[in-house]
Amino acid sequence: MRAFLRKASLCVMLLAALAPALAQAQTREILAVVEQSAEDWNRGDLEAFVECYEQSPDTTFVGTEISRGASEVLNRYQRAYPDAAHMGNLTFSGLQVRSLSTELAIVTGRFDLKREEQRGGDKTGLFTLVMRKGSNGWRIIHDHTSASN
Amino acid sequence: MRAFLRKASLCVMLLAALAPALAQAQTREILAVVEQSAEDWNRGDLEAFVECYEQSPDTTFVGTEISRGASEVLNRYQRAYPDAAHMGNLTFSGLQVRSLSTELAIVTGRFDLKREEQRGGDKTGLFTLVMRKGSNGWRIIHDHTSASN
Repeated sequence: MRAFLRKASLCVMLLAALAPALAQAQTREILAVVEQSAEDWNRGDLEAFVECYEQSPDTTFVGTEISRGASEVLNRYQRAYPDAAHMGNLTFSGLQVRSLSTELAIVTGRFDLKREEQRGGDKTGLFTLVMRKGSNGWRIIHDHTSASN
Repeated sequence: MRAFLRKASLCVMLLAALAPALAQAQTREILAVVEQSAEDWNRGDLEAFVECYEQSPDTTFVGTEISRGASEVLNRYQRAYPDAAHMGNLTFSGLQVRSLSTELAIVTGRFDLKREEQRGGDKTGLFTLVMRKGSNGWRIIHDHTSASN
């Protein structure tokens, strides 16, 4: 019994020691997906950009209205950003990852879009992403983006 | 072995049959918390209202800025809504609950705030709540609320 308790407490200590490393790895994986999406956007490649969303009818995007389903999310982007000039240059800042489990996390941050006045001009605001790890890695299952201008 | 497989498949069938009932129960529990928060708001009781948030330093609210920690979320509400007249009358509509696990869910919906012009006037917009079930039941761990006016 004592030997079992010693082994069990060693396991707990080992897991506790590993937890920060696992959380850091999760944060790195998530940020890589988010940063890749900005790179895809800035190449003007909307189809590559929307790969950061889970390709599911349950994927939701809350902007000025609510879009349900990955294909409707793509349609909304295509209507609002019909070409590279309308897409402009996107940067994210203040990214914070909050782990909810090994498979779920919330990401918050600010977006800044720089573009010509005749293409809609600059935009800035805050976003919340709920991300889930599936067979394709971390993907956005819910996005709430609010522009402050 | 056959008897075991029969029992195992019965278990799977039972769980599959129970799943919709469990999801419905989860949705009911979550909506009860959200609707209670509107009742507390409409009584002008801000302290009761904020009980729908998890009392944790990790609780986050995204509005025009990001507030971190349940006490900072309360402070923000107290600054923006100093009395019952500023709080006005709040209704929620189009509430949708998306279950992520037995302990996590996303709620989306629209809010409509009716109040006197000299107290800030009407406000409407969309919100995303990430809710988690803990020892006190379902609580909001992250709120992103964006006003469209």
